[in-house]
Amino acid sequence: MSSVASSPPALAWSVENCTLGRTMAILGERWTVVVLREVFLGVRRFDDIRRHAGIPRQVLSNRLAALVDHEILNRVPYQADGARTRHEYRLTAKGLELQPVLLAISAWGDRHLADPGGPPTTFVHRGDCEQPVHVEVHCAAGHRIDDPRQVATRPGPGVRPFEG
Amino acid sequence: MSSVASSPPALAWSVENCTLGRTMAILGERWTVVVLREVFLGVRRFDDIRRHAGIPRQVLSNRLAALVDHEILNRVPYQADGARTRHEYRLTAKGLELQPVLLAISAWGDRHLADPGGPPTTFVHRGDCEQPVHVEVHCAAGHRIDDPRQVATRPGPGVRPFEG
Repeated sequence: MSSVASSPPALAWSVENCTLGRTMAILGERWTVVVLREVFLGVRRFDDIRRHAGIPRQVLSNRLAALVDHEILNRVPYQADGARTRHEYRLTAKGLELQPVLLAISAWGDRHLADPGGPPTTFVHRGDCEQPVHVEVHCAAGHRIDDPRQVATRPGPGVRPFEG
Repeated sequence: MSSVASSPPALAWSVENCTLGRTMAILGERWTVVVLREVFLGVRRFDDIRRHAGIPRQVLSNRLAALVDHEILNRVPYQADGARTRHEYRLTAKGLELQPVLLAISAWGDRHLADPGGPPTTFVHRGDCEQPVHVEVHCAAGHRIDDPRQVATRPGPGVRPFEG
């Protein structure tokens, strides 16, 4: 049973101009990634996520169930004073590993889809540092790769012929 | 007018066990990102993309049109010997910038959704190096961040209050 946390700070910020949501609206269906964004933001309770992200109740219910099925989120009971037991959603280790995906999506969105005033959220190195974070592409030999054309695709260990 | 390229090598590999496609099936609608994967793989022509990825014709047509609208892809005419003019799709600079997103999605899929034999494709540093590439999270102070919990969300320049 989780302790009753105070309201997550991010719940005070509108996600209406969120660049991750805008990028996913281009890249496909946005709701699942938007649900993950909320949990990464610390918004973990059904009604908080629903109100904050403006997700229809049934859609949110389906997306959360799928994310729990895929072991990306855990469903953890909590109980507020005098209320019945409810559940909040926490990232599993597998779910936390999606963070670079969300950071990469947000970075592209910040660059190409933000309002003139800039994006609503930034991601920083927690603690004393507080500097903004970003994703970089590196190779196993330790080179940093800035030019996407320096990345080539090769057949992997599981490659199978394409039979057309 | 583009010259007539030989068949892209990746067209010989099946994408049936592609971990990027599997990840996007969890994260939302997969087709748009699958189309981008094909173009990043060098599969640039409508019929090649359609056959290779197994995308319904009308879906592919819609996704390509949207990606051109968003200036992620350019539509470039080409002419094979004796055939009528056709078009192929090339990544714009804005589209190339999506590469870290695709690499991050693929890495997560490789780790969690690959067949026992491994994923069908790998991404390497092109040229003499040929070492596999990956995304890393860094902060502006130069720290590499391995633990997702070291990343915190802060209000950005465009933050607006959430009115509930």
